[in-house]
Parts: sequence; structure tokens; C-alpha cells
Amino acid sequence: MEHNLWGTPDESKELSASVQKLLHKLLGVGELTLHRRTTAQTELSPIRLGDADLAELGEIVGPGYVTTDKEQRIRRARGKSYPDLVDWRMNRVIEAPDAVVAPGTETEVWEVLKFCSREKIAVVPFGGGSSVVGGLSPKKGGMRAVISIDLRRFDQLEDVDPVSCEATFGAGLSGPHAELLLGEYGLQIGHYPQSFPYASLGGFAATRSSGQSSAGYGRFDEMVRSLTVVTPKGIMEVGWKAPMSAAGPDLRHVFLGSEGSFGIITKLRLQVHKIPQTKRYEAFRFPDFAAGAAAVRAVVQEGCGPTVIRLSDEIESSLNLSNTDSMGSAATSKVGCLCLTMFEGSENHTKSRHEETRAVLLAHGGTSLGEMPVREWEQGRFGAPVLRDGLIDNGAICETLETATDWSNITRLKTAVTEALTTELAKTGTISVVMCHISHVYAGGCSLYFTVVAAQKGDDPQAQWWPVKHAASQAIIDAGGTTTHHHGVGTDHRPFLKGEIGTPAVELIRAIKHELDPVGILNPEKLV
Amino acid sequence: MEHNLWGTPDESKELSASVQKLLHKLLGVGELTLHRRTTAQTELSPIRLGDADLAELGEIVGPGYVTTDKEQRIRRARGKSYPDLVDWRMNRVIEAPDAVVAPGTETEVWEVLKFCSREKIAVVPFGGGSSVVGGLSPKKGGMRAVISIDLRRFDQLEDVDPVSCEATFGAGLSGPHAELLLGEYGLQIGHYPQSFPYASLGGFAATRSSGQSSAGYGRFDEMVRSLTVVTPKGIMEVGWKAPMSAAGPDLRHVFLGSEGSFGIITKLRLQVHKIPQTKRYEAFRFPDFAAGAAAVRAVVQEGCGPTVIRLSDEIESSLNLSNTDSMGSAATSKVGCLCLTMFEGSENHTKSRHEETRAVLLAHGGTSLGEMPVREWEQGRFGAPVLRDGLIDNGAICETLETATDWSNITRLKTAVTEALTTELAKTGTISVVMCHISHVYAGGCSLYFTVVAAQKGDDPQAQWWPVKHAASQAIIDAGGTTTHHHGVGTDHRPFLKGEIGTPAVELIRAIKHELDPVGILNPEKLV
Repeated sequence: MEHNLWGTPDESKELSASVQKLLHKLLGVGELTLHRRTTAQTELSPIRLGDADLAELGEIVGPGYVTTDKEQRIRRARGKSYPDLVDWRMNRVIEAPDAVVAPGTETEVWEVLKFCSREKIAVVPFGGGSSVVGGLSPKKGGMRAVISIDLRRFDQLEDVDPVSCEATFGAGLSGPHAELLLGEYGLQIGHYPQSFPYASLGGFAATRSSGQSSAGYGRFDEMVRSLTVVTPKGIMEVGWKAPMSAAGPDLRHVFLGSEGSFGIITKLRLQVHKIPQTKRYEAFRFPDFAAGAAAVRAVVQEGCGPTVIRLSDEIESSLNLSNTDSMGSAATSKVGCLCLTMFEGSENHTKSRHEETRAVLLAHGGTSLGEMPVREWEQGRFGAPVLRDGLIDNGAICETLETATDWSNITRLKTAVTEALTTELAKTGTISVVMCHISHVYAGGCSLYFTVVAAQKGDDPQAQWWPVKHAASQAIIDAGGTTTHHHGVGTDHRPFLKGEIGTPAVELIRAIKHELDPVGILNPEKLV
Repeated sequence: MEHNLWGTPDESKELSASVQKLLHKLLGVGELTLHRRTTAQTELSPIRLGDADLAELGEIVGPGYVTTDKEQRIRRARGKSYPDLVDWRMNRVIEAPDAVVAPGTETEVWEVLKFCSREKIAVVPFGGGSSVVGGLSPKKGGMRAVISIDLRRFDQLEDVDPVSCEATFGAGLSGPHAELLLGEYGLQIGHYPQSFPYASLGGFAATRSSGQSSAGYGRFDEMVRSLTVVTPKGIMEVGWKAPMSAAGPDLRHVFLGSEGSFGIITKLRLQVHKIPQTKRYEAFRFPDFAAGAAAVRAVVQEGCGPTVIRLSDEIESSLNLSNTDSMGSAATSKVGCLCLTMFEGSENHTKSRHEETRAVLLAHGGTSLGEMPVREWEQGRFGAPVLRDGLIDNGAICETLETATDWSNITRLKTAVTEALTTELAKTGTISVVMCHISHVYAGGCSLYFTVVAAQKGDDPQAQWWPVKHAASQAIIDAGGTTTHHHGVGTDHRPFLKGEIGTPAVELIRAIKHELDPVGILNPEKLV
């Protein structure tokens, strides 16, 4: 990805004049316009590593795989949160890793970690660079410098067991690259978060990513059969010798969600899935969010088994449907809430799942809208994050945040987060649009994914944003939600984790970290 | 349960004369006959706690909840493995816990653990007493005495969220008691291992229990939303504020499977399920185990969704079906392998699941046997362990052991375990019958559950058995299986865990234990 954009320059989209006008009229967007800065216009923090450090690192990984090149450091300096993207538009010296190191084997990773432990150099692992929670920020903690360890050389599909539907991958593979290699065996992973085009498999595991087909294929953490993790203490393979076991604690779940703080994931064995023979699609309209949520809950609690099920609230539905002709005249009178369903598998499987799901949704007050809204969503589903850059360039705030809770608590949580965002943004002088959808469902509850758009106000959009983000995170904790459902903790959610999991849990996580990374070089100032 | 039996004396069944005769003829059973010893005939290890210790414990939990009564110590001295049951039939001094302590609150548990840490007294938590892997053996490690902490006072259904289908239970509740309380809300847990009538919810969690409806409702570990655990360091609530989350490592999975070695589980919040409107049943016959396994694999990999699916091998099938009339004349000519399916839920759900599953099984060479074999299995499913006592009383070895592996490895693993058992038993001078079934299925693989029957030989049935058990466990490791799929590690599988998970993983588990239980009082000489 381009350092100052989501995606590549090819994908980049200008905001049309009419949308600009509308945002100006509705929200007062356009007061501040910050311009993307090129590499040449960007100044990086001075390099804190000496020639001896770089030479030693070069000894370990090969001199071609250590660099202090500005372009390479820039691309590993930030993720893709709104504050990250604003950073590249402001005239600031950007803190960047001092060097980028790309080991090629687990032993090399271990040697680098031992060198860094000895030399007090912090390490930030780099997969696809798509963190939206400050997971890539090159914090050095108490160390004297920071390196970025790039996993790109861990890019092999190592073996495939087509009978058990399992495959072993290098952690540096991107979603599309992994699917391309696996597709030759008639198999797919089936993990499609919005970051899919760029993020790495190791990143999916380290952050407990959840994809749009989570209802059908599960979260990424549920697909992980085993992990190879390199810690400063040594190389571990974590997992049992079976899909499930009672052989003690499940240490996979210590490393899943550990966000590079305990070790570096280099290899993953995944439960994969047969490429589906067929797909079915159907969209539904519900009169309001509560009715839609009750219907979606019934689908998951009865185990109807859609591969994808999503529900947008009234605001998001009206925006989604304004782009489509498929609503017909019903849409213009009352949009309501849009629910998308998709079914993958054999002919028999998709048919029985579709029929059972549809019967439940109709019984709960849904009206069929046919296939089109789902097909359109499927076509455009990885494109949305690209729109953010155009908005930011034109003086808008555009950010997403997510949480999850029990079904009995979703109204309270949705209201609390919406109020926190609008109230806090109003204090900065802007009206805001907050929309929400459910995209990951469980028997006990669901995720809530919020998108907020408002006007940048004042001289410093980051100073404007942080109190808003903090108010939203605090509202989540206070209303009984989880700090993050699938974006991860990173630096941004770190202040709120203790409020969620409690001090004894934080202390246990720190003890585990201390056991594996006694010097504390890995991802300092993140997670806990 | 009676100390020297599975179950109560009421349930106890004499072996019929004809079965005795058959076992004698086939396997040479009957050479050795050991008699169950009553409490009066049983001598226990001397009590190593002084009056001051007992008084201090009484101060914490109330004097009525500390006892050194022989009957109470006996009932908490052993689990229900074959060697445990043999112990009560041999003229030995039985190592028993020095006292039984029953705290009533989490604070009391913590105070007891702090007292024991200070006084170097080991602690063995006691739920239902149904461990079959030596999990209850009162090992003292380096401590000076051992107490059994009985969780029976943690017996409340604390709250129910019928919308989110979640409920909070005391960890000391037995399966039936918990279901009775929850049933009033139209909900059930849906966890039915063979130990269901006796085992406790805390035990299910601590050992990663898996029930017969695991295909439909998941393993017990998958139902755990959060846990309250009392460690010597303090009281922790472990879990996120949502059904799923990306808020760091999932510490539930550190305590699930920890078998009382990190702390004592006192409370659990579980994902529960609506009591099904209806059930459907159908049994199938497959020509052989490989064909049946391929069919069952297709069912799970295509996501057909039965609540129960089981496959017995040829030997187990012929024994099961000899008790039933439902096979008709087809059975007598060739038994093949029996596959049982059961479907629970709404009318629509069970119908669609049944039809999809049945189509896949028939397409893979199955022949329908109708409902009866499944209904008979359902009726008798908690009764099988009772038969063991009659066999042992009449000079037979009868034990079960279990493992799991990938689908691509099941033939190799099944053969290896069967050969290890028969070869090692042959060395002791007995023919053996080894039968096997699949009862827990996953996309990637399944469990293999073995039952072995043979003749006791020599003076000491335990000395005869241990080399056999070790050979089977080593065969499991060598053939790439997991040490245990749902019985747990306990003392019996401890020597094999390192071979499965590796030294770095064992060291990490020890570091976690040391963090939470620095003196090492909890379940010494178990797990790792």
C-alpha cells in the first residue's frame, strides 16, 4: 500500500464535486484541507542505529535484507487509522523505525530477537501494514532504537492435506496470495475482512481478525490449527496434534491476539475449506434495527447457517441503497434496515440453508429485496476504505470503530457509542453522521461496527479526534461492550483494556510476556 | 458415587453367568477375582494435618465444612479409572487427602489457598469425582499434606439471560442439577458426556470435556463465556465483555484444560441453548470403518449439522447390534459399521439438517437402519460405565482411552493403538478385544475412543495394566495423535504431554503456574 493512502494510487478515488458540496452543506466539511505529502516532502525521525548495529543485523539476515532507506522506513512507520492517515498530511517529523530487517528463516528471526534483546532495540513486526489501531507505531519503550521486522520472505504454501482440509502457510503471505496458492488444490481459506487485499496471514492471527464470512467459516482465530512463533526465548510450535484436544491449556489462544508482543508468528497451519460449488444471495428489508437484530439473532440461535449475514442500521441502509436501483419504489417510501445474506457450499447445502434462513427472516418481519443488494455489496466490499482518503483530503473526519456485546445489550451499547461520538464531535463544532452495522454474529451476541463522518475543525485534526475516540472507547466499556471485536488493541485501545479484562488478567498477560520476552523488546507500549 | 464403583449401588449390575462364561471362553477371564472392599475393610494413609491446621481451616470456612472423616476422605481419594477401581479391590493402604474442606465463597477459597501456600499443604479440587486419568489422586508434591477442596457449595444458577442464551452457574453443580435449574427457563446446556450424571460444571471446564452432542452444541470449552477462578494470587474473572473479541489473548483458554493446576474454578458463564422443539433419529450401516469415516467426514466438512454423529467400528458395531432387534436379517449376514445420527431444534431445522445429512451418508454408501438403534443408544448412553465394575469384579480388565487426529491419519492411528494394546496385553498372557468409535467430529479430524477388554493376569492387575497403558499412549504420540481428546491429562497422561506439545510449551505452562501458584500447592504432580 501507498504510505499515505489505503491501497494503491490506482485504487485512489477523488471525491466528486457533488459529494463535496453535500458534505459541506450537511456537516460543514471543507474548512480544513490537508494535502498528502510525498516521500520527498516528508521528514523522518533520525536513525538511532549505528553502522555496527546494521552490520550485525546484516550478518544475521544477509546484507540485502537490512535497510535504512527512507521509502522503506516510511512504508513501515504507520498503519491506516484516521490519525495515521492524517499524520502523512501534516507537516510533522514522522517517527519511523530506524531500520527495516527482513529475515528469511525462523532461526534468523530468533537471532535478530536475541541481538535486539542484547542491544536493547525494540522490534515491531510488519505483515501487511493494515493496522487501524496504531499497531505499527514504532514505539521504543525503554529501548534505544526500533526496527521493523518484515515477514515478506515467509511466503510459501508449505503443504496441503486435502483430506483433512488443512494447509500450512508462511505468515507473510497476503490474503489474495495465499488464496491463489491454495486455489490450485480446490481449497480456500474463506477469510475476507476489508483488509483482505493487503493484510498478512500472520497479522490475521496476531490480531484475531474476523472476516465477512465469519458466520460460515468462523473467525480467523477459529481456523488456526497451529502456529510457529519465534520469541526471544526460542522457537515454539503451538497447537495440539489434533483438531481438538484436552491436552492442557490451549496455548494457541495465548498467541492469537498477542499482537506481536510475545513473539513473531512465522508459520500457520489452518483449517481450510473446499471452494464452494455454488452461492446463493438474498437481501431483506426490516422496518427498523431492533426488528432486524431480533431476526438475525433468531437465525444464528436456531443455527440456520448462512455464510454471510449482515444488518445495517437505518442511516447506513439509506446510504447503501441510494447507490442501488434494486430497491424499487418500496425504497423511496421507507428504507428501513437492510439485511444481506449469502450462502456457500454444495447445491443441497446452500439450498437448505437458504430456505431455512429465509423462513426465519420472513417470519420475523423481513421483506425480500432479491439478490441484487447482496451482489452489489459483494462486488464493492473491499473498496470502502479507499473512500476515506478522499474524505480526509477534503476536510472530513472519516473513521470506523467496532465492538461487540450480548444480544440483550446491543441497543444500549449502540446508543451509548453513537451519543459519545456525536456529543464529543459537537463540542469541536461539527455535526456528525454515525452509522452502524452488525456483521459478525454469535449465539450470544454480535459485533457493532460504526462509521463516523464529520468536519475537521481547528488547526490539528488529531487533537480534535483523540478526545472523540477516547469518549467512544470509554462509552463502550461503560456500556458493557468489548474494547474491540476484530481490529485489535494496538496503542489506541491500550488504555481501555484493563477496564475490560481487569488488573489480574493484565498482570497475567505481562507475566507471560516477561517469560517469553524478558527484556521487553517486542512491540513496546502496545497491548498491555 | 460410591467410592469403589462408577455410579451408585442402585445402578450396579452383576455380570450374567452367560457373559461370564463367554468372557472366560474367549479371553480366559476369571483367573483373578478381586472383591470390592467396604469402607470398614479399607485402610487410609495416616492424617498429616494437626489440630491447629484443622482449626485454622475451620476458622476460614466454618468448622462444619472441614472434616477428616474416613468416609469423606475415601470418596475423594480416587477417580474412576480402571486402576482407581482396582485400588479399592486390593488389600492396600490407600493414599487419601488428609482432610476435606468445603468453602462457600470465593473469598473463602482464596483464604484457604493462601493458608495452604503458607503452610505448604497441597490442594486437589473436587467436583464430581469422575476423573478417569488420575486427576483426583492426592499427590502432595513437595508439600507436607494434601487437602481436597470440595466445590459442592457452589451450586447456584446465578442469573439467566434468555435473550442472549447465557447463564451463570456455580462450578460445583452437577450436569443434571444444572439442567434442572436451567430447564425452568426453557434452556439447556446440551453437554452430555458419559460422566454427565455425576461430573461438575467446573470439572467439565477444567478438563475440556466434550459431550455426545458436540457436533451440535460444541465442546464444553466452546460454551464457556467467562470463568471465575480463584488462584493463590487472587480472584480473577476471565473472559471478554462479548461473545467474541480481539481484546488480546483469550485467557479463558489458559484456564480451560488447566485441571486445577492454576486455580480453582468457582463460577462459569455459559452459552446455553433453547430446549429443542423436536428430535429426529436415523441410523446407518456402512460396509466398513473406512467407508463410514469418509461419509462422516463429508457430513462435517459440508456442514450438514447433525447434533450427534457417531461411527462404531466393526467390533463395537457387532456388540451394539447384538443387543438390538432393529437390524433385521441384514445384520446377521454382515454387520459392517453402525453410524448413529440425531438432530435437535425446530421442526424446520431438524428436517433440513436430517435431509442434508442423510443424502450425504447415502451417497457415501450408507444403508438406513431407521430410528431404533439411535433411540436405544440414547436410552442407554450413560449406563455403559456401570458395566465395568461387574467385569472387574469377575477378573476382567475393562478400560477406555481416547485420542484424536486429522482425517488423513485416522487409519494409521487406529491401527497403531489397537496393535499396542493387543501386543502388550498378549505379553501378559491374555487375548484382548479392542473396539473403537468416532464420537466427536471436526472439519479437520475426529476423536477415536477405544474400549479394551481382556483377562486380569498375575497377582497385581495394576502392574499388568500400566505397561499396556503406557504402550498405548506412546503409540498415540508416535502415530501423530493427541494424548487425550476429552479425558484430560491428570497424572496418567502427564509423561506424554511433553512429547505432544514440546518443551517450550511445557515451560510456558510452568511459568504461568508459577505466576499464579508460586508455592506450587495446586494439583502437584499433575498436568505438567
